[in-house]
Amino acid sequence: MSDELARINADLEADSPATAALLSPLGRRAVFPRGIPFQAAEARGKAFNGTIGQITDGRGGALALPSLTAGLALGADGEGGPVGLDRALLYSPIDGLPELRRAWRDRQRRDAPDEVDSSLPLVTCGLTHGLSLVADLFAGEGRAVAVAEPFWGNYRQTFVTRTGARLVAAPAYRDGRFDPRALASALGTLPPGEPALALLNFPSNPGGYSPTPSERRTVADSLLAAAERRPLLVVCDDAYAGLVYEEGIPRGSMFWELAGRHPDLVAVKVDGATKELAFFGGRVGFLTFPFAPGSPAAAALESKVKGLLRAAIGSPVATSQALVARALASPSVEDEIEALRRVLAGRWRALRAALAGCDPDLLASPPFNSGCFALVELVGRTAGLDPERVRRHLLARHDTGLVSVAPRWLRIAHCSVAEDDLPELVHRLERGVAELVG
Amino acid sequence: MSDELARINADLEADSPATAALLSPLGRRAVFPRGIPFQAAEARGKAFNGTIGQITDGRGGALALPSLTAGLALGADGEGGPVGLDRALLYSPIDGLPELRRAWRDRQRRDAPDEVDSSLPLVTCGLTHGLSLVADLFAGEGRAVAVAEPFWGNYRQTFVTRTGARLVAAPAYRDGRFDPRALASALGTLPPGEPALALLNFPSNPGGYSPTPSERRTVADSLLAAAERRPLLVVCDDAYAGLVYEEGIPRGSMFWELAGRHPDLVAVKVDGATKELAFFGGRVGFLTFPFAPGSPAAAALESKVKGLLRAAIGSPVATSQALVARALASPSVEDEIEALRRVLAGRWRALRAALAGCDPDLLASPPFNSGCFALVELVGRTAGLDPERVRRHLLARHDTGLVSVAPRWLRIAHCSVAEDDLPELVHRLERGVAELVG
Repeated sequence: MSDELARINADLEADSPATAALLSPLGRRAVFPRGIPFQAAEARGKAFNGTIGQITDGRGGALALPSLTAGLALGADGEGGPVGLDRALLYSPIDGLPELRRAWRDRQRRDAPDEVDSSLPLVTCGLTHGLSLVADLFAGEGRAVAVAEPFWGNYRQTFVTRTGARLVAAPAYRDGRFDPRALASALGTLPPGEPALALLNFPSNPGGYSPTPSERRTVADSLLAAAERRPLLVVCDDAYAGLVYEEGIPRGSMFWELAGRHPDLVAVKVDGATKELAFFGGRVGFLTFPFAPGSPAAAALESKVKGLLRAAIGSPVATSQALVARALASPSVEDEIEALRRVLAGRWRALRAALAGCDPDLLASPPFNSGCFALVELVGRTAGLDPERVRRHLLARHDTGLVSVAPRWLRIAHCSVAEDDLPELVHRLERGVAELVG
Repeated sequence: MSDELARINADLEADSPATAALLSPLGRRAVFPRGIPFQAAEARGKAFNGTIGQITDGRGGALALPSLTAGLALGADGEGGPVGLDRALLYSPIDGLPELRRAWRDRQRRDAPDEVDSSLPLVTCGLTHGLSLVADLFAGEGRAVAVAEPFWGNYRQTFVTRTGARLVAAPAYRDGRFDPRALASALGTLPPGEPALALLNFPSNPGGYSPTPSERRTVADSLLAAAERRPLLVVCDDAYAGLVYEEGIPRGSMFWELAGRHPDLVAVKVDGATKELAFFGGRVGFLTFPFAPGSPAAAALESKVKGLLRAAIGSPVATSQALVARALASPSVEDEIEALRRVLAGRWRALRAALAGCDPDLLASPPFNSGCFALVELVGRTAGLDPERVRRHLLARHDTGLVSVAPRWLRIAHCSVAEDDLPELVHRLERGVAELVG
């Protein structure tokens, strides 16, 4: 073990014993080595800097191909945005562009209580990459990961296939209603003392659900109670943050209600520009820890994440970061985001109305109020139908594509269907399942 | 094991037993699941498509924030490039944009013999991500990875820290000259029959070396001989492809001299736009297998890579792919790349001249003819000096940043230093080491 690794592991153990106890074997050995990026950072600003293997004009500017930059409308730093063309073309720092990290943190903390600590977010290559870094740090062979079912299928690949962790699921809905104790129930099946992870995803995928204020209190209280029995890492997967359509449903992340509340509950926040800025192809995500910037725990985890990120993808995408930094600096961006939310709210209302008209002996619709999706459940005469069979039938006979979610759901992504098309889509779905049950 | 996983593993075993024998435990269990991206691909073009969780106008176009797109100068598909604004903002297919994959393959194969097979390249998030996917597929606990020393330090993080593989090193230089048998020597220390990996990196980092035609023959012949004794995966890390400055030194990838030459030697090619198009911040890399597009082995490996990529980063960067696709479609791009190469060739000549004038009792310079770097070796009076101590001294006293490479080298990145500055940089280096030995 290097001196540096021993030092950060000791720092983490002293500053947050629960986080140290939750580390996977890979998480324990991860550290940002004193290699080229470390040495390059030390050489920044020197008169002669021959450290980095990127092609520059010799003064830190890019030597760019005109055919490549023709697709970009970026000037120098400060022209139309804090990060200009040169930095969009050259390597990003491993932890991300500092201007972007600060701007994202400010945006994250708009509704955060002052007394809750959060780190300067580390930039990841999209949301999933934030989750896979969490998996590398904290999951691993046999580690239990609690999740409410149905859940986004990629959790299985990210946590189980890659690291060997095991998912422990509990039903998200009970008697057709959201169960705020689902994660705590899943955790309750584990032997006391065994460290565990829990995945908290609101607005949810595939459910399109965000809890009410009283449900939120139950979610938080039940997880805090679970932390009485074990070191617990709660991953707040805030992919769809802000996309809430129903009156009275809080839009903020539950991270702010969990971070710093219990010594054995470690909340981490995974969010990004993917959905919040509708920048799906840009791959800009963020990973945030519940520790103050510069604290020993934050510094230790930052070193570990930088080591893992460097080993897996080299550095995050500078080009997309420059675009996101520019967008966040624009005075109109929040109005633009709100306009987008209103478009989706219109779709949500149209879909809710269409689903309310379905024959309850064919299809049920669990409550949904937010995000990009709605679930329909095969019930009554369609109970027992394989949703994959329904999906194939809709593709083949009704020119309609939905996603099947075993064992009894289909997911409708209203975010990618025009409002006017949603009644007809639901009509085809209803006709399709009716055909299959004769 | 899912049916799909069993099928692709059987296909790989039948089509390329050596590749199947080389898979890591993670590589064996990796498969692209029939989840959302798979189901979304099946729904493409349907009248009603509610599969994907990305926000669109309902007809497949992006709903973009003006503050975000202000930094892009992209129109519709075909306007100035094959991939337009909508696809730059929305999710890329997991395997990459088809136009870009085809264009990159055409460019890769410019000097390839027709009879050598190569797959349609899979798009990765930069070069390192291609290497980490290879590590996931083929490395793992205890697996031997042969490498010539000194080597790029990040190989250690990517292969050893992440997967538990072990590096087996042999000196790249012998008596001050490149040793084309270095990798074969490292492999020769392993028990017969044990599967192994070898990392082949020309132009090299940190050496800045590409072999002569006769050395290339020796490299290839010695690796083909090594494959007589074990299944051998040769990773051609072609990060610096094309950046060759000395007359008579071949510029092509050694992948074309190894692929398909021996049933137990599996060559894979890792390359990208990072250095080839000087697009460091874009994170566009490629991973290519030595099997024909659509062959059972190519299809099986593509499924595995897509599964691993989806689990780790979701999808590759669409925005950067659009910019690279546009650049490759430009009639002037190869001239622009050649102009960049000539700038670097000028720096290489200046650095070579400056190093030739150094006191041979202080510094030696192993041969270098290509790439972004040169090594200097601490010899004579400086033999035994810690290069890290030299690095710190140069930073503190000479306003000069270089990279230390244990146990006796410093790396000069001439790619990021102006030609006119290189003589002074070498002068400071020489003065600095002289001060340290009194």
